[in-house]
Amino acid sequence: MNFHPELVKIGNRAKHAARRLAFTGTEEKNKALLAMADALLRNEKRILEANAIDVVKAEEKGLKKSLVNRLKLSSEGIANISNALKDIVGLPDPVGEGKFWTRPNGLKIQKTRVPLGVIAMIYEARPNVTVDAAALCLKSGNACILRGGSEAIESNKVLAEIISVAAEGSGMPEGSIQLVTMTEREYAQQLMKMNKYIDVIIPRGGAGLIRTVVEQATVPVIETGTGNCHAFVDKDADMRKAVSIVFNSKTQNPGVCNALESLLVDEKIAEEYLPLIGKKFKDYGVEIRGCEKTKKILPDVQIATEEDWGTEYLDLIISVKVVKNLDEALDHIYEYSTKHSEVIITENYTSAQRFLNEIDAAAVYINASTRFTDGGRFGFGAEIGISTQKLHARGPMALAELTTEKYVIYGNDHIVD
Amino acid sequence: MNFHPELVKIGNRAKHAARRLAFTGTEEKNKALLAMADALLRNEKRILEANAIDVVKAEEKGLKKSLVNRLKLSSEGIANISNALKDIVGLPDPVGEGKFWTRPNGLKIQKTRVPLGVIAMIYEARPNVTVDAAALCLKSGNACILRGGSEAIESNKVLAEIISVAAEGSGMPEGSIQLVTMTEREYAQQLMKMNKYIDVIIPRGGAGLIRTVVEQATVPVIETGTGNCHAFVDKDADMRKAVSIVFNSKTQNPGVCNALESLLVDEKIAEEYLPLIGKKFKDYGVEIRGCEKTKKILPDVQIATEEDWGTEYLDLIISVKVVKNLDEALDHIYEYSTKHSEVIITENYTSAQRFLNEIDAAAVYINASTRFTDGGRFGFGAEIGISTQKLHARGPMALAELTTEKYVIYGNDHIVD
Repeated sequence: MNFHPELVKIGNRAKHAARRLAFTGTEEKNKALLAMADALLRNEKRILEANAIDVVKAEEKGLKKSLVNRLKLSSEGIANISNALKDIVGLPDPVGEGKFWTRPNGLKIQKTRVPLGVIAMIYEARPNVTVDAAALCLKSGNACILRGGSEAIESNKVLAEIISVAAEGSGMPEGSIQLVTMTEREYAQQLMKMNKYIDVIIPRGGAGLIRTVVEQATVPVIETGTGNCHAFVDKDADMRKAVSIVFNSKTQNPGVCNALESLLVDEKIAEEYLPLIGKKFKDYGVEIRGCEKTKKILPDVQIATEEDWGTEYLDLIISVKVVKNLDEALDHIYEYSTKHSEVIITENYTSAQRFLNEIDAAAVYINASTRFTDGGRFGFGAEIGISTQKLHARGPMALAELTTEKYVIYGNDHIVD
Repeated sequence: MNFHPELVKIGNRAKHAARRLAFTGTEEKNKALLAMADALLRNEKRILEANAIDVVKAEEKGLKKSLVNRLKLSSEGIANISNALKDIVGLPDPVGEGKFWTRPNGLKIQKTRVPLGVIAMIYEARPNVTVDAAALCLKSGNACILRGGSEAIESNKVLAEIISVAAEGSGMPEGSIQLVTMTEREYAQQLMKMNKYIDVIIPRGGAGLIRTVVEQATVPVIETGTGNCHAFVDKDADMRKAVSIVFNSKTQNPGVCNALESLLVDEKIAEEYLPLIGKKFKDYGVEIRGCEKTKKILPDVQIATEEDWGTEYLDLIISVKVVKNLDEALDHIYEYSTKHSEVIITENYTSAQRFLNEIDAAAVYINASTRFTDGGRFGFGAEIGISTQKLHARGPMALAELTTEKYVIYGNDHIVD
């Protein structure tokens, strides 16, 4: 494949930057992060002006209001982004951590954490991702190539320039942070095949973007995001908890990947439980698409189609199915889960243990909201995305997930017989 | 893409097996491994008969002698394969290990090792891989789909039948170990795209096979193998060690990925060192392809071309370059390394530390043979391949590398505010 010369230039600069970043110390990286945080505050006006252009264009194009809101930056938003950088300064640097052992022949082996190298992020509208991703990559010693969506291009250009100038100004190698300003799809597709320059691609965005990257990339991908999350209300559930947890999982922030999309209810308690949660949902404007049995108990609901069971609504809609027992719930989740976050609500020890053991997902819960699947809420201090694949990283990814390991071997004239 | 119905059947069986294997205990898996080991010994005659058919066909086809030797099984070879299974029984099971913490809000989070699910192995001539791979996958709770090369098909069919019958006979789910008997390339290509059924593909074999899998697979791949390994003999090297280690790295088993392929020598000691190693190589029949400066010191050598610097010979050939200093050595390795194993020979602390820190490879050595890069020699007790990629696993991969993690969260009515 022939790559656009500008992409090759970016790739080469990133590779060279990565080579130096790999052995740049934590203190130096932290200094650069602080400089980036300050530069954002100092350049607030420039950022807001660029962002206003994006917002006007988006409104003219008739972009959905929720998307325009995601795009929009404010003084407060910029301060938050800047503060997030300062938080990253406080996180421990995973590079250089490791373990160590000695073989019977005296060979000493160190397994030590090192940066991945060059990370490409392909993402959609939110301009804060530009800064977040660059900062997490830098802290973990990686060079990054950022390719945001066309909707945020003016904001991204200004943000990337401000932080890369600040980083280089405080000693980071040239090319540590670069934005691809060509937003046409073909250049993203070229990036996905630049194995010589890029070590990993992380897509962040809608299901369509992620599918494209997984299908087309030859560079290794960390898949993020899609969450068709289920709650199972067991026959031995505490009704109050079951209402509280299911309602919170669905409504606390319905547009995100760890929001609840599908509810399974044991038939033995369906007549008691469904009217309770049904009323809460109705009052809040949540649309229910239910199975036949659900409709018998909640006559107002629309009948769910086969498609509903596999749909991540990201909206105030939920599919509801009455199941015979835990086994049928496990089978249903096995069939439709995207392996993101799944929860059982029960007071029964054995049912809980079966659910926790047998469900294959990044996060499996008992008696807690699926909304906790998040790097911050898990205690990692940051998050670059939630991996729904099994290789390398699973669930919320923070700094350690942006590193790999290498073996360092101290010999003393050791040869193999 | 339309998959062959037989592959879909295999995929479904593997998925169902993986679902049960994920919570099958270590004792049960070990029982199955012992039954497999016994069954191989009991069926020695059948295995040797099938293998003889493969060997005769290979000889008729004029396959290289070294490849025919890799294909050939003996009584002793079968006993070794069987013993390797017993060794795997003795290894700790990584599944169910993990760590645990409690969040300030009381949420208890467990990060626990779980099997990957379904692993597809695509490999070439050696029939022992059929048994090794199946055993390592089983011990780590994974179902495996094996797709060996056509040269070993008769051996593989018999081996896979024997071990899968033994495994199922001692309680493992049907479909835990399956061989794809269709050896045409198109079916391997279909496997690479069966994301719905397969969690990971591990190719093992020559550079061509691995490139094909990396380029064509949509299923996540763990890339193994290619090793263009370098030794740098520093100006402060101990000459005796430099001869011993370089000679061992090159000649102890030249056909494997951790063998040395390229030698870099500091110009300040080249006149002393090159005649010493040159004589050893000449006596052993190692062909040297050297730079101009090398030829001045060793007039017999052939001049190396640009291609030589990037070639993994896997043979008694080595490229040799005289460099100005450590910096030029680092630059050369940066340019041509496949990031497998690299070694510096030196008595100088600071040069050693720079090499260990600045070289980006799975294994970086000081004063030891590159041939140590091996699961067994690192103390892992087994090896399914050597990863040369950075995602998920790097260097020798053993049981833990065949697992992923999941978060199990114990709540007590926890919701997100």
